Amino acid sequence: MTGPRYPALIADLPSSVPFVGPETQERERGAPFLARLGANESVFGPSPKAVAAMQRAAGEIWKYGDSTSFDLRRALAASLGVGTQNVLVGEGIDGLLGYLVRLLIAPGDAVVTSDGAYPTFNYHVAGFGGVLHKLPYRDDHEDPAVLFAKAAEVDAKLVYLANPDNPMGSWHDGAALVAALDDLPEGTLLLLDEAYIEFAPEGTSPVLDIEDPRVIRMRTFSKAHGMAGARVGYAIGAADLIRSFDKIRNHFGMNRTAQIGALAALEDEVWLETVKADVAKAKDRIALIARDNGLTTLPSATNFVAVDCGADGAFARKLLEALGREGVFVRMPFVAPQDRCIRISAGTPEDLDVLADALPRALAAARG
Amino acid sequence: MTGPRYPALIADLPSSVPFVGPETQERERGAPFLARLGANESVFGPSPKAVAAMQRAAGEIWKYGDSTSFDLRRALAASLGVGTQNVLVGEGIDGLLGYLVRLLIAPGDAVVTSDGAYPTFNYHVAGFGGVLHKLPYRDDHEDPAVLFAKAAEVDAKLVYLANPDNPMGSWHDGAALVAALDDLPEGTLLLLDEAYIEFAPEGTSPVLDIEDPRVIRMRTFSKAHGMAGARVGYAIGAADLIRSFDKIRNHFGMNRTAQIGALAALEDEVWLETVKADVAKAKDRIALIARDNGLTTLPSATNFVAVDCGADGAFARKLLEALGREGVFVRMPFVAPQDRCIRISAGTPEDLDVLADALPRALAAARG
Repeated sequence: MTGPRYPALIADLPSSVPFVGPETQERERGAPFLARLGANESVFGPSPKAVAAMQRAAGEIWKYGDSTSFDLRRALAASLGVGTQNVLVGEGIDGLLGYLVRLLIAPGDAVVTSDGAYPTFNYHVAGFGGVLHKLPYRDDHEDPAVLFAKAAEVDAKLVYLANPDNPMGSWHDGAALVAALDDLPEGTLLLLDEAYIEFAPEGTSPVLDIEDPRVIRMRTFSKAHGMAGARVGYAIGAADLIRSFDKIRNHFGMNRTAQIGALAALEDEVWLETVKADVAKAKDRIALIARDNGLTTLPSATNFVAVDCGADGAFARKLLEALGREGVFVRMPFVAPQDRCIRISAGTPEDLDVLADALPRALAAARG
Repeated sequence: MTGPRYPALIADLPSSVPFVGPETQERERGAPFLARLGANESVFGPSPKAVAAMQRAAGEIWKYGDSTSFDLRRALAASLGVGTQNVLVGEGIDGLLGYLVRLLIAPGDAVVTSDGAYPTFNYHVAGFGGVLHKLPYRDDHEDPAVLFAKAAEVDAKLVYLANPDNPMGSWHDGAALVAALDDLPEGTLLLLDEAYIEFAPEGTSPVLDIEDPRVIRMRTFSKAHGMAGARVGYAIGAADLIRSFDKIRNHFGMNRTAQIGALAALEDEVWLETVKADVAKAKDRIALIARDNGLTTLPSATNFVAVDCGADGAFARKLLEALGREGVFVRMPFVAPQDRCIRISAGTPEDLDVLADALPRALAAARG
């Protein structure tokens, strides 16, 4: 008996996955991590009001979620000052990235991103047969001018830009991005990943007409709102583009409790400010810990800090592995020269005590 | 400024959606439904142990779920007597259907299903450019012999068969399906949708070697386990096929609380038996209510009953709409001759009191 017949596109895809999760690493090492600082989760947790709302809703999980996420979309639209028709809720930014790539990219279509930017986007582009052009970072920043020029050269249908950037934590001023858009070619859509926007300085998000057909933004409840496990992301853009997702998305894909929790989280602005203050303190402490160990840190508009390990990617990899053996889960950029860094998420004071204790030993091990 | 450029496949897709959710209908009618009996949800709810587990886990939603759903997959594999490598957990059967169609179907590839079977499967096939061949039901049963013969004729890569069937509630004996597989052509994969299998008589699920490359099964926590809003489905099949999903799936797509709740639900076999008893009672009562109103019902191996309204689809549609105005949410098959029926999910005694009260008036309205 023969097995299923895969199309060539699928048969040729690699089996590698974008990220190995910390639980997989814990099973491999046979012990839990002592500090979970590798996935830019918000260790400060979700709003207590969101937790309470999700607990109250748990018994109602027998109902499918609203296929239109209407209440959450309406609240998001109101908070953004746009129409409900300009907002789509989906299964995290990862899910929305997959939908958007599927909407636009047929096999052979050109896509542009930065070399070392979000690998899950690249995974989706490869999965739909897109041809990915990767441009270098400039001074640890994604470089809109270079990206847009390449888009013009290869007639790209889609350009990815994260602002603030992951994994480096760098950012561009929104007004500068608006000016750069003059050089975005006609017919190229800019996908602006704003996953970390709540942590960024005022003015980081570009001010644009919501019906501007050149840009779609994506945001999430996974970072500042502390709900990574809920899988709630949203896209913001022109009504025509937002509506087109209805042709292909998994309409009943949203977890009902997650919809309810996200709505409660959105309404708790006080908690968000508390988290931002905690994150700022944690980033300062990470910088201190790094300095105490002779390392430097990069400025960050996110909830993580890129720590420059002062050598090449091989050394940073050794340090990361040594930290892992010490029970500290962190990640690092995938390509040079960014891979001279390790990326450490903002932790609780207890998490950072673990880091402060482990880092000297891990450095010694990496150098030894 | 021009908008995004969609590939022809996407541009040509209809904007219609497979199902309108009850919340959308409630917003349109301006009032909540009194009895929610249209989506084959389990009104009896999830296991109290699952609810408690989800409530305990709510505060930990800041963590991404395990990208491999390892604990749940291991428990499912143990309960099924197969290897962990034979089980994939995904975002409901709807999500898994999308992944499977994407894995196998390139534009122009042939797919076979029954005319009136699950529309969300058809939605995914259209979405990836597959050519769908729909074969008639026979005596309100999907007809494996006819489906497999068509698959041979059109060289189908995929055949859909639900056992038990939705929307009619009919079923085939597992041994008969095993025998029918002799006529499944080489290189055609049978997708066996077993969403309702827990309600079916012993022997309904075919006994096959787990590494048999001809069949993949899909099951869910949405029906008997009462967790439709959680979005937890699973696929069972040959390790090679299961592994291939890793090339394309949204690896961090699972809600963490849902993973935890599903594991607790799986372990609570007593609750499952209670639900099955409640469903059996509810189905008997629906049959009585139908009979009291001069209608007949079809045998059902699911948690719903197809009620034969005794006329054509137009009449059933009128009755369904009249029930909706009475506050009773039900659905109906999409095509003739199955659309002579309306489909009523097993309800609580209170739900069925509402139905018993509303049905005579709705029938009068439909006839009037």
